[in-house]
Amino acid sequence: MKISIQQLNPKALGFEKNKELILSKIKESNNDVLNVFPESAISGMPLMSAIEYEDTYINSALLCEEICQTNKDIILGTPIKIEDNRFNSIVFFSKGEVIGLSTKKNLGDFDIGFDSGSGIETIVYNGKSIGFGFEEDLEEFALLGNRVDILIICSNIVFELDYQQPLYSKLIPIVRKMDTTLIFVNRFGAEGGYLFAGESFVINKRGEICSMLPLFEDSSSQIETDNLKLQYQNPLPRMERLYMALVFALREYFSKNGIKKAVLGLSGGIDSALVVVIAASALGKENVVGVLMPSEFSSEHSIEDALCSAKNLGIEHHIVPIKNSFDVMSSELMTHLPSDFDLAEENLQSRLRCVTLMWFANKLCAALLNTTNKSEAAVGYGTLYGDTSGAISVLGDVYKTEVWELAKWINRNNELIPYNSIHKAPSAELRPGQKDSDSLPDYDILDSILLEHLENRKGLEEIILETGHPREIVEKVLRLIRINEWKRRQCPSAVKVTKYCFGLDRKYPIS
Amino acid sequence: MKISIQQLNPKALGFEKNKELILSKIKESNNDVLNVFPESAISGMPLMSAIEYEDTYINSALLCEEICQTNKDIILGTPIKIEDNRFNSIVFFSKGEVIGLSTKKNLGDFDIGFDSGSGIETIVYNGKSIGFGFEEDLEEFALLGNRVDILIICSNIVFELDYQQPLYSKLIPIVRKMDTTLIFVNRFGAEGGYLFAGESFVINKRGEICSMLPLFEDSSSQIETDNLKLQYQNPLPRMERLYMALVFALREYFSKNGIKKAVLGLSGGIDSALVVVIAASALGKENVVGVLMPSEFSSEHSIEDALCSAKNLGIEHHIVPIKNSFDVMSSELMTHLPSDFDLAEENLQSRLRCVTLMWFANKLCAALLNTTNKSEAAVGYGTLYGDTSGAISVLGDVYKTEVWELAKWINRNNELIPYNSIHKAPSAELRPGQKDSDSLPDYDILDSILLEHLENRKGLEEIILETGHPREIVEKVLRLIRINEWKRRQCPSAVKVTKYCFGLDRKYPIS
Repeated sequence: MKISIQQLNPKALGFEKNKELILSKIKESNNDVLNVFPESAISGMPLMSAIEYEDTYINSALLCEEICQTNKDIILGTPIKIEDNRFNSIVFFSKGEVIGLSTKKNLGDFDIGFDSGSGIETIVYNGKSIGFGFEEDLEEFALLGNRVDILIICSNIVFELDYQQPLYSKLIPIVRKMDTTLIFVNRFGAEGGYLFAGESFVINKRGEICSMLPLFEDSSSQIETDNLKLQYQNPLPRMERLYMALVFALREYFSKNGIKKAVLGLSGGIDSALVVVIAASALGKENVVGVLMPSEFSSEHSIEDALCSAKNLGIEHHIVPIKNSFDVMSSELMTHLPSDFDLAEENLQSRLRCVTLMWFANKLCAALLNTTNKSEAAVGYGTLYGDTSGAISVLGDVYKTEVWELAKWINRNNELIPYNSIHKAPSAELRPGQKDSDSLPDYDILDSILLEHLENRKGLEEIILETGHPREIVEKVLRLIRINEWKRRQCPSAVKVTKYCFGLDRKYPIS
Repeated sequence: MKISIQQLNPKALGFEKNKELILSKIKESNNDVLNVFPESAISGMPLMSAIEYEDTYINSALLCEEICQTNKDIILGTPIKIEDNRFNSIVFFSKGEVIGLSTKKNLGDFDIGFDSGSGIETIVYNGKSIGFGFEEDLEEFALLGNRVDILIICSNIVFELDYQQPLYSKLIPIVRKMDTTLIFVNRFGAEGGYLFAGESFVINKRGEICSMLPLFEDSSSQIETDNLKLQYQNPLPRMERLYMALVFALREYFSKNGIKKAVLGLSGGIDSALVVVIAASALGKENVVGVLMPSEFSSEHSIEDALCSAKNLGIEHHIVPIKNSFDVMSSELMTHLPSDFDLAEENLQSRLRCVTLMWFANKLCAALLNTTNKSEAAVGYGTLYGDTSGAISVLGDVYKTEVWELAKWINRNNELIPYNSIHKAPSAELRPGQKDSDSLPDYDILDSILLEHLENRKGLEEIILETGHPREIVEKVLRLIRINEWKRRQCPSAVKVTKYCFGLDRKYPIS
C-alpha cells in the first residue's frame, strides 16, 4: 500500500492558510496513494479556549467538506462536534466519503475542553486491516490485544531536546508485540512557545525505524508498506539540535506574527551575544538591530565586546548611553524620597534600557528579543519591566551552563561570539564592580541544583544527597525559585526545549 | 449528630501555618463533635507543579499524623500518595485512627497531575450512614442510586460574582432525590488570582438552605443534624459583593506575600480613582501612596481630580511630572532615528510612568497596583511595561461599565471618588485631545460585544444577531481581542470575579 506522509505546519486557527496547505499537498498526490496528515492539521494547535467556541467546529467542518470533495484518500486530524460533544478527532476520507472516525479517548494537555472519545478505530481498507488514531490511545489499544496490518498515528508531539528516546522506547515494544507497521505522522512548526519537531517516522514489524522525515521542515515522503527501506539516521548532536530549535522558533514567531525586524540590547555579555547570532541567522542580519546602552557602571570591555558582536554579524547598531536620562530621573525622584543609591537605582537603569529598547521597537515596527536564560529566570535574577521584557524569550529554557556550551559550539569554526563574552565573569553591571557571583552560587553549582529540582523533580533533602552541595546553598536556591514565581508570571514565553519550561509546564502557586 | 463546619483559609504549601490553624480549631472543639474542614485544608490550593513533588506528600502525611493524634473526630482534605498514585483526598479520622478515605475521581482544573480515584465513600458513623467526598463526584454518586443519612462535601469552590445560583440549582435536586442532608464545607481566601468564598452551607432534606457561613471570613459553625434551623439570608447586592471581593483579594495578596504598602499612579481617571479607594479600604490609608505624573498632554482637571482622590482618602501623594525625563530621552533617541511624534512617544510617556512608580515601589518595599480594567485588557488598550504593569490587577476582571457602576455604588453615601472622574469622557492623555472613543467604540457598545464573546462564548455572526451592532464594529473588537493575547500574557494576574478571567480561564493561541 502506498502511503504519503504529509508533514506540514498548520497555524492555530489559521483555517484559510491550513486549507491551502492541505489542498496543495493533496493535489500533488496520485489517486492510488493514502495521504496522511498530522493531528489538528485543519485547526492547528494549541486551541485553548477556542475549543469552547462554535466557530472552531463550523470552520473545521467546512474545510473537511472541501477536502473530502477532492475524492482522494486522506487521513487527517480535526476538531469535530457531534451532538453536544466536542472531540479531537482523526477522519478517514475515501473517494468523497467519510469511511472512518477516531476520537481521542485519553486526553492530553492540549485537549482541555474536549470530551473523551472512543480511541483508535480499525477499518479494512484496500484489503488490509488498518488501525488509526492518536498516540495517547495507543497503549490501551495494544493492551486490549488488537491486531492490525498497519497502524497509523496522527500526532502533534512537542519537541524537547531529548524527546526521541522515551518516545521510541515506548512505541517499539508495542509495534513488536502487535506485529504491525507503524506510520507516525507529526506536524512541525512553533506555536505559543511550543516547538513541533516533524521527524515523522515509520517503524517496521521488527521494531526498526526505517524512515524519518527531517526536523523542522515541510516535507512529504511516499512509502510502500510492503517494501520498507531502512533509512534511519542518528540524530544530530545535541548542541546542533538546540541551535536549530532556537533559530527555527524565532523565525516561526516572526513569520507567524507578521513581524520582520528584531531589536535587542547588546551588553557585551554572553546571553545577548548568543541571542544576536541566533536572531541574525533566523531573520537575516538586515533585520536585526542592536542597541548598546552603557551606564557609568559599564566596564570598557562591555562596550568593546558588544560592538564586536554587532560588527561580527554586520548588523545595524546604536549606542545610546542612559546616563543623562538616569541622572535627570533619579535626581528628580530623590527630591521626593531622599535616600541612598540602592536596588531602586539598580532597577531604574535596567528599566530605562527597556524603555529605550521599546522605543526602537515601536519606531521600527520590530519585536524586542528577551535575553534572559533559564538559570536567571529560575532565581529571579533580573529586573521586571527591565531586562525581563521582550516579545519572546529566546534562552528562557536554556540553562546558563548550556548557554556557554552553545556559544562554544557556534564558534567552532569561526568566532561569531566574542571570546571575551564567553570567558569573562558574568555581571549585570548595575553597581560598581558587581558580579553575578556576589548574589548567586557559581553557575555550575546553581545549574546542578536547578537541574535536580526543576527537571528531576527532587526536593531539598534529595538534592543535598544527590549533589553534595551545602544545605544552606540548596535551601537558598529553592527559596529563590519559590519567591520569584510572581516575576516569571509576567515574563515573555520562552522557547520550550526541556521537559519543564517555565510558564508552559512549570507553574507554582503564588499568593 | 453534632458537626462543626470549619471554614478556614489555608495557604498553598503553607504547611506550618495550616497546621496551626487546623490544630487551634480542633482544640476548641468538644469531643462529641465531628469537625469538618475544607478540601486541601492541609496543603492549600492551587498546588500546580507541586502536585508532582514528593515533598508535598511527605509534609501532608506528617501533618495528618499530628492531626490524627489529637484523637478527635475530623474530616479534612489532603493530597495523599498511595503506592505510585497521587490523589486529591478527604480523610476521616476518628479516635486516633483513619476510618475512611475518599479520593477524587472526576478531576477538576486544580487537579492536573493527580490520578483519578474512587469517588465518594460511605461509612457508618455514630449509627448513621455518611457519604463524604468531593463536589465533582457527587452527581455520579447520586446517579448510582446511593442513599445516605448525611452527605458531607469538602470543597474549594472558586468565587465568581454569580457562582451561587448555578451551584445551588445543581445541588438541591440531588439532595431532594437522595432524601439526605448535605453539609457543604468551603474554604475562604485568595490565592494566585482565585478567590474562595467561604459561604459554607447546609441543605436539608426538603432542599432548603438552612445555614450559611459568612463570605470571605474565618468562621466555625456548629450544627445538630437532627435539628436544623432555617438561617439562610439572601445574598448581598451584586455591587456590594464585588466591592467586598476586590477589597478582600487585595488584603489577602498583601498579607500572604508579606507586603504592607501599595503604590499606584493617580491619573484623575475613573480606574485609578476606584482602585485607590479599594486599596485604602484593604490596606489602610497609611499604607497607600499615590503618585501623580502629569505630562504636557494632561488636562488641568486631571491633576485636580487626582489630587481630590488623594485628599478624599488622606493618603500620601507625590507629584512627579514626567516632562523633563521625557524631553531628555526623546531628544536623545530622536538623534538615532529622526521621526515624528507617534505611538513610540505615546508609549514612552506611559513607560516612564511605570519606571517612576517602580522606583517608588522599590524604595518603599511596596507593590505596584495595576489599574487596567477588563474592557481595556480585552482590546489591548494599554502600554506594555507602561500602564499594564503592576503586581496585581485589581480591576482586570471588571468591565468598564461595571467600573462606573461600582464607583457610583461606593459614592452612594459620601463622595470618595471625585464626581468628575466618574462623569468625564475617558482618555489616556498621551497626545493632545486624545479620547478613548477615538480608537474604541463607546464602552456600552464595547462591553456588550465583550460580554457576548467572552462570557457567553458567542462568535461573530451570533454577536451581530444578538446585539444588533454593525458588523464592522463587532469584527474590529473580535480582532483586537485576538491580536492582543500576547500583551495580556505578560500582564499581572487579575482578581477573578467572572467565569472567564483572562490569564486564568481564558487563554487564546498566540504564535
